[in-house]
Amino acid sequence: TRRGVPEAILGDGKTAAETASLAATAVETTGRAIVTRTDDDQQRAVRTRLADDHPAAEVTVHERSGVVVAHDADFEPPDVAATVGVVTAGTSDAIPAGEAAVVAGEMGATVERVEDVGVAALTRIVDQLDRLRETDVLVVAAGREGALPTVVAGLVNTPVIGLPVSTGYGYGGEGEAALAGMLQSCSVLSVVNVDAGFVAGAQAGLIARAVGSARGEDDDE
Amino acid sequence: TRRGVPEAILGDGKTAAETASLAATAVETTGRAIVTRTDDDQQRAVRTRLADDHPAAEVTVHERSGVVVAHDADFEPPDVAATVGVVTAGTSDAIPAGEAAVVAGEMGATVERVEDVGVAALTRIVDQLDRLRETDVLVVAAGREGALPTVVAGLVNTPVIGLPVSTGYGYGGEGEAALAGMLQSCSVLSVVNVDAGFVAGAQAGLIARAVGSARGEDDDE
Amino acid sequence: TRRGVPEAILGDGKTAAETASLAATAVETTGRAIVTRTDDDQQRAVRTRLADDHPAAEVTVHERSGVVVAHDADFEPPDVAATVGVVTAGTSDAIPAGEAAVVAGEMGATVERVEDVGVAALTRIVDQLDRLRETDVLVVAAGREGALPTVVAGLVNTPVIGLPVSTGYGYGGEGEAALAGMLQSCSVLSVVNVDAGFVAGAQAGLIARAVGSARGEDDDE
Amino acid sequence: TRRGVPEAILGDGKTAAETASLAATAVETTGRAIVTRTDDDQQRAVRTRLADDHPAAEVTVHERSGVVVAHDADFEPPDVAATVGVVTAGTSDAIPAGEAAVVAGEMGATVERVEDVGVAALTRIVDQLDRLRETDVLVVAAGREGALPTVVAGLVNTPVIGLPVSTGYGYGGEGEAALAGMLQSCSVLSVVNVDAGFVAGAQAGLIARAVGSARGEDDDE
Amino acid sequence: TRRGVPEAILGDGKTAAETASLAATAVETTGRAIVTRTDDDQQRAVRTRLADDHPAAEVTVHERSGVVVAHDADFEPPDVAATVGVVTAGTSDAIPAGEAAVVAGEMGATVERVEDVGVAALTRIVDQLDRLRETDVLVVAAGREGALPTVVAGLVNTPVIGLPVSTGYGYGGEGEAALAGMLQSCSVLSVVNVDAGFVAGAQAGLIARAVGSARGEDDDE
Amino acid sequence: TRRGVPEAILGDGKTAAETASLAATAVETTGRAIVTRTDDDQQRAVRTRLADDHPAAEVTVHERSGVVVAHDADFEPPDVAATVGVVTAGTSDAIPAGEAAVVAGEMGATVERVEDVGVAALTRIVDQLDRLRETDVLVVAAGREGALPTVVAGLVNTPVIGLPVSTGYGYGGEGEAALAGMLQSCSVLSVVNVDAGFVAGAQAGLIARAVGSARGEDDDE
Amino acid sequence: TRRGVPEAILGDGKTAAETASLAATAVETTGRAIVTRTDDDQQRAVRTRLADDHPAAEVTVHERSGVVVAHDADFEPPDVAATVGVVTAGTSDAIPAGEAAVVAGEMGATVERVEDVGVAALTRIVDQLDRLRETDVLVVAAGREGALPTVVAGLVNTPVIGLPVSTGYGYGGEGEAALAGMLQSCSVLSVVNVDAGFVAGAQAGLIARAVGSARGEDDDE
Amino acid sequence: TRRGVPEAILGDGKTAAETASLAATAVETTGRAIVTRTDDDQQRAVRTRLADDHPAAEVTVHERSGVVVAHDADFEPPDVAATVGVVTAGTSDAIPAGEAAVVAGEMGATVERVEDVGVAALTRIVDQLDRLRETDVLVVAAGREGALPTVVAGLVNTPVIGLPVSTGYGYGGEGEAALAGMLQSCSVLSVVNVDAGFVAGAQAGLIARAVGSARGEDDDE
Ligand SMILES: Nc1ncnc2c1ncn2[C@@H]1O[C@H](COP(=O)(O)O)[C@@H](O)[C@H]1O
Ligand SMILES: Nc1ncnc2c1ncn2[C@@H]1O[C@H](COP(=O)(O)O)[C@@H](O)[C@H]1O
Ligand SMILES: Nc1ncnc2c1ncn2[C@@H]1O[C@H](COP(=O)(O)O)[C@@H](O)[C@H]1O
Ligand SMILES: Nc1ncnc2c1ncn2[C@@H]1O[C@H](COP(=O)(O)O)[C@@H](O)[C@H]1O
Ligand SMILES: [Mg+2]
Ligand SMILES: [Mg+2]
Ligand SMILES: [Mg+2]
Ligand SMILES: [Mg+2]
Ligand SMILES: [Mg+2]
Ligand SMILES: [Mg+2]
Ligand SMILES: [Mg+2]
Ligand SMILES: [Mg+2]
Repeated sequence: TRRGVPEAILGDGKTAAETASLAATAVETTGRAIVTRTDDDQQRAVRTRLADDHPAAEVTVHERSGVVVAHDADFEPPDVAATVGVVTAGTSDAIPAGEAAVVAGEMGATVERVEDVGVAALTRIVDQLDRLRETDVLVVAAGREGALPTVVAGLVNTPVIGLPVSTGYGYGGEGEAALAGMLQSCSVLSVVNVDAGFVAGAQAGLIARAVGSARGEDDDE
Repeated sequence: TRRGVPEAILGDGKTAAETASLAATAVETTGRAIVTRTDDDQQRAVRTRLADDHPAAEVTVHERSGVVVAHDADFEPPDVAATVGVVTAGTSDAIPAGEAAVVAGEMGATVERVEDVGVAALTRIVDQLDRLRETDVLVVAAGREGALPTVVAGLVNTPVIGLPVSTGYGYGGEGEAALAGMLQSCSVLSVVNVDAGFVAGAQAGLIARAVGSARGEDDDE
Repeated sequence: TRRGVPEAILGDGKTAAETASLAATAVETTGRAIVTRTDDDQQRAVRTRLADDHPAAEVTVHERSGVVVAHDADFEPPDVAATVGVVTAGTSDAIPAGEAAVVAGEMGATVERVEDVGVAALTRIVDQLDRLRETDVLVVAAGREGALPTVVAGLVNTPVIGLPVSTGYGYGGEGEAALAGMLQSCSVLSVVNVDAGFVAGAQAGLIARAVGSARGEDDDE
Repeated sequence: TRRGVPEAILGDGKTAAETASLAATAVETTGRAIVTRTDDDQQRAVRTRLADDHPAAEVTVHERSGVVVAHDADFEPPDVAATVGVVTAGTSDAIPAGEAAVVAGEMGATVERVEDVGVAALTRIVDQLDRLRETDVLVVAAGREGALPTVVAGLVNTPVIGLPVSTGYGYGGEGEAALAGMLQSCSVLSVVNVDAGFVAGAQAGLIARAVGSARGEDDDE
Repeated sequence: TRRGVPEAILGDGKTAAETASLAATAVETTGRAIVTRTDDDQQRAVRTRLADDHPAAEVTVHERSGVVVAHDADFEPPDVAATVGVVTAGTSDAIPAGEAAVVAGEMGATVERVEDVGVAALTRIVDQLDRLRETDVLVVAAGREGALPTVVAGLVNTPVIGLPVSTGYGYGGEGEAALAGMLQSCSVLSVVNVDAGFVAGAQAGLIARAVGSARGEDDDE
Repeated sequence: TRRGVPEAILGDGKTAAETASLAATAVETTGRAIVTRTDDDQQRAVRTRLADDHPAAEVTVHERSGVVVAHDADFEPPDVAATVGVVTAGTSDAIPAGEAAVVAGEMGATVERVEDVGVAALTRIVDQLDRLRETDVLVVAAGREGALPTVVAGLVNTPVIGLPVSTGYGYGGEGEAALAGMLQSCSVLSVVNVDAGFVAGAQAGLIARAVGSARGEDDDE
Repeated sequence: TRRGVPEAILGDGKTAAETASLAATAVETTGRAIVTRTDDDQQRAVRTRLADDHPAAEVTVHERSGVVVAHDADFEPPDVAATVGVVTAGTSDAIPAGEAAVVAGEMGATVERVEDVGVAALTRIVDQLDRLRETDVLVVAAGREGALPTVVAGLVNTPVIGLPVSTGYGYGGEGEAALAGMLQSCSVLSVVNVDAGFVAGAQAGLIARAVGSARGEDDDE
Repeated sequence: TRRGVPEAILGDGKTAAETASLAATAVETTGRAIVTRTDDDQQRAVRTRLADDHPAAEVTVHERSGVVVAHDADFEPPDVAATVGVVTAGTSDAIPAGEAAVVAGEMGATVERVEDVGVAALTRIVDQLDRLRETDVLVVAAGREGALPTVVAGLVNTPVIGLPVSTGYGYGGEGEAALAGMLQSCSVLSVVNVDAGFVAGAQAGLIARAVGSARGEDDDE
């Protein structure tokens, strides 16, 4: 794992058998497997295969986001003394936001989920401000016009990573308006590509690691 | 004037002399001239020319938006019993927002300006809610990510017309992200083209006329 | 329902069971369900489910536009004293135009449909002028080159909302030429995104409500 | 001249001296010069130079379209027994429409101009129907949404060539909406590129030549 | 039939039954049906339905282009004294070129097909020059870089209509490079949209009618 | 200053007098002025104006990046116990990279510049690895194909913010290829818009603040 | 075969039977068949058909790239005294890189494959430098940000042909960022279209032929 | 000079003084200066400066392409036993084609220019076939539809590098249609970016070096 960023297996476009086989190899060689964008078949195949090959491994299926994680019995997860917040505007943001949450968690950060706080109903965001302000870094997912990261970044002091989601149709649909809006944001943000939940979560994980290890520096003294 | 929408003279790309001459003709034939996107030279030329040809005409120069309006002595402005709100996110929205305000006013509506309420600082919007809610229709201008109309439409019951402004650079710059974001908005909006302040104001004017004449219907009975 | 705009369930990309279940919940909680972009399976599933859970509910399936509406026995529909016209250029505009008509109707407006008046045969438009002029606001749908709203807006005094439809192939196909043409229109229009019939109808409904409540104001005096 | 299409000199981006010199050479070698997109300086330079070098040449400056044509004393213009109509929606179409008219005329066709018949005011088009129907082929120029060729082609039996003009700003501006709209037209049209007045006129000239020589075929018998 | 351009039924996206039913109605009302972009099922359904309803009708299926044409026993096809050439660069141009050929033929023109003369092998074009030069108007189809119309128009005196075809992948694929190349052509051309074989053929048919009726003018005298 | 991000004055499109006046106001109200994208005239005007109004203020002109910073005598700059690295591929990256460096510095971080380490000569990057690895967060600027952030992020453990620069011409020029390449990066990165040096530096400053204050946490205990 | 570039049959969009039949004809007429983008069915059909019709032919199926090659017993492959290197960044480059390798090999060149040397891990590239430097021309395939050809061309003296691959999603996905990045490259490169492995291999084959025949020139003396 | 590709100074956007100074430094350090995209002022300044600093240097100004080359007295130009052909469609291709010719020449190749052989007049190309066939590699420049490289590559055995030129206006203008057309070419080509004459010439130079050194291999034996 370069930079502590775990390798992940992309389920999209692979057969259930291929996916299961790659997952088994990952557990074999690194003690862990992370598989993203899986469907039911792939999830079942991974479970079955790991039950055979690595019966001691613990397998977690995140259904809404399609991510599968397996830890072998002796896998020692990293631990980072920092919190990553993952915020969504609506249910259609579940897949990339879920990927971000999983990868940040697997990098050792504590993950805080804040859901369904779309910009068309500001009070819901304001109600969550305390939770948002307690994180060290935020991933904010949003589709269609993608305005949520701008609004959130106007309310907190933590760094915000915008994660555009491929919702919407017509002009600016499929995440284009969201990406463009986040790049044009009046608030200070950095962004990742449309649906790149894994990248957003990993970047948040890297920032959490930097903060967490700064926190720990005095411990070493 | 078709539909009560006054003709306007577009200053862009015309000489000061041409502009002045078209303004004089407009006053001559319709009792009124509206000139948009004028610079200092054009404004001076229009003033001078009308002082000569139509000394009784009243000339108003809207400096921030570059709009010039002239009414001849006997011009009878229309009167509409409805209010158009024109909202801006920042100073760079002044030109199209000013065009919208002028044309709506010239169509007879009362115009209410609400300024500098960008989405990166929500409290300023919330502070203006009462004024926003008293209008019959709103034109909301915004550049860069253009999220303001979405947020406003989530807070009021009146119809909102989004007016994207050509600010911003890089991907989605020059008003593209703003237009795309408004077309993708999670709130119910209709929109006009980038910088089309004249069109937004005229559409708001048509809605105000519909509301105003409904208000007046009992008077006729 | 914010601003009187009813929530709708988007059938696209949901299973028949999911769709039916969301419809039942909507009837349960609000007394009404509106489901758009449904196919035969979804329509059947919604009917069956509501027959079980809400036997008193009245279910209407709009076949050409794929919209399903259910009203529970005690649902009190809003009533607005204003008329929304919905105009189409051809049969391929049926889906978004139907969505617009349903949502405007559900918001309480009287809805007037004017069909198949494409710009390549002007006489058909001229024949319908009286009906067009009796409305308070018009939604005009058109695909391919999308010129119909421009022509209609040149003939009436009411506000026009252009609704571009995703017909056409090659350059400018899938509604792009129609959207661009409406944004560039020589007539005064506001527009919504390609195929955004729901948004067009809701915006028309908001304008109708403004007009209708103005009409009613004297009643209160 | 291949296919009877005369060579033309493009004034854009050339100095007055270069332009004049190329015009003189053209008169020298072919008896004729056609210079497009000229400004005042270039027009004066061409006149002066030809007065010196070819005092017998007749020089015509088309001011609105910026085209200059010179015929030497002994130049024998072609003659074609057919009429090309050139139709414009507004004054901003003057340059490409003027180019089309000049080149069709120089190819020998009779040219009929029909001006300012935009689609937002249908009656003006209808008033010109008889003149439009007497032509053998039509070039129809239009900017912004470019709907005029569609409407005209719905009213006549002659072939129509759509000529999009680079007017408009924002999305679809600079002629893009017009080009896309003409390519998507519900009426049968062929088109040329944005502002390609020369090409439209030459294609109309080729069609006129085909018609004219068919007309003349019996003469030869 | 406006302008002598026959209505056609677009098979794409219709069921076999719908297609057959529309074809039967067309034969019923106009004596003729033209159905484009049909697959095997639709072709069979049309044949079967017409055998039932209009047993005297003659049905022709153009397999490579997917066009079906039916003429009722008493249908009197138009006759035009002019020839339309339809030229293709390769086998992938068969569908739009076939549509062009059928519609031009149905408008009464003689149709001349010239096939597989791609620009990467110039000698094949040169070998066909005599046939090309005998036509009155040419439709030239080409995909990928779409250079064929430019080369052909450099070799003949007849008007050329470029028909871009949606072949190619990557940048400029799906007919975009072909369309752009034809609009930028160094030769004089007009063009239609990508794959718009019907439009190209109909425009060629209108030109052929103009030429043919000019040819006939003396006959009437 | 929201989130500790200082307001900056954008010199682009303002007169020298306007710029100077805004700078004087900023020093007046906040003790500091930051002006970006200034030319010689604006720099001179700011110096002169501040010499008059705030003679005690210290003014620094960053010539290569066009940024001017002024601190009044009693301005107390923030201090953050963390380092921001700013890396450039070539001299054309000077303006946005300089903006990033200034804003990060003004937010209190130590700034480390690493220059001219383009990907076409890998050894220069490798030579700087130790310096790169000692930073807490990196801004990596690159134009044309923008590959530098990908390569750097493959070599360090710190979070990397990609800053695309508007160099290059033709397809993908003006920073588009760089932006797209960074969004597609095989390494974990977040990015800002083309030329948005201010945003990149501010985001790096926010991360540095998070790290720095984590470092300081034990001090408070 | 023009220029020694063999014709290939594109499997995409053809039935197994059509593909097999075209392959049989190719072996019949040229002694060789090359079929690209085949799936399992097509591969089986080609094998079966050739076993029947050309039992002596040797058939090779390249599984990862989907290319099938058949040589009849008496086919005499060309022989070129030069080496083409084919380099890939990852496994998703297998199809176009495989096409490039096969066509270069079929043109007679020696082909050297260098695999999985992505830019995010520079050491792997450096480890292969000796092999890269021994080739006469290189095809370098890369998807996503497509930076590999730039890095390779900075390390070798041989000409490099960039082959962008349609991997990646979101902005710049499907090979667009890779194509743009290669066209903007800081190193000297020429490129082919996205996924155009056949073209890249053939161009490399032409260069290898030029080098190889130069090598052989003294032999002839 | 990496790979024997000389560094060049880009005149665009530099003052005459800066350009002259960089040229003087280049001569000082490498014995040679190549300056591209220069205007009259820059050319004069380079001449004057080198006359002062390096009076023995030989300075050549290529007027049509704006390239200036200086060789100090003791500069030893490389010598390559191979020929690069540089082909243009028209005079507007002079700048990038001239850059290509100069850089290939400075890399030691013999350069053969073939001019004004546009595809609209095939005979001019055919007349030059013998010269084209005697080269070892060809750079073929073309603007507008950019079809020339396709046609040339269909007639010769040498590798062809397509060089799109930024001519044309409207859709596909500024070299986009040319780039797309070359990437879609039916003939085997590789391409460089729009106007990237330097890159095309350098790539041709690298191929010429590979061929030339192959030619020389026996000499060394
Ligand atoms: N700022 C503006 N935006 C859009 N349309 C305008 C504007 N100002 C004037 N117009 C309209 O543009 C047309 C005037 O164009 P012109 O003949 O060039 O002065 C008229 O239809 C005006 O109503
Ligand atoms: N291949 C085609 N390309 C373009 N237009 C067509 C085609 N086939 C039919 N049409 C036209 O499309 C319209 C029929 O659309 P529809 O009502 O969907 O069958 C008619 O105006 C036809 O003339
Ligand atoms: N180079 C820059 N890039 C992006 N934003 C900037 C830049 N310089 C200043 N700003 C921001 O732009 C806004 C200033 O805009 P203005 O009112 O036009 O001066 C403020 O929010 C600044 O923080
Ligand atoms: N993978 C490929 N990429 C590009 N061109 C190909 C490919 N495979 C075959 N071709 C070429 O495409 C043409 C074959 O098209 P088709 O007639 O549809 O089989 C021939 O000129 C082939 O040389
Ligand atoms: Mg959203
Ligand atoms: Mg804004
Ligand atoms: Mg339409
Ligand atoms: Mg128009
Ligand atoms: Mg072709
Ligand atoms: Mg770079
Ligand atoms: Mg890659
Ligand atoms: Mg060309």
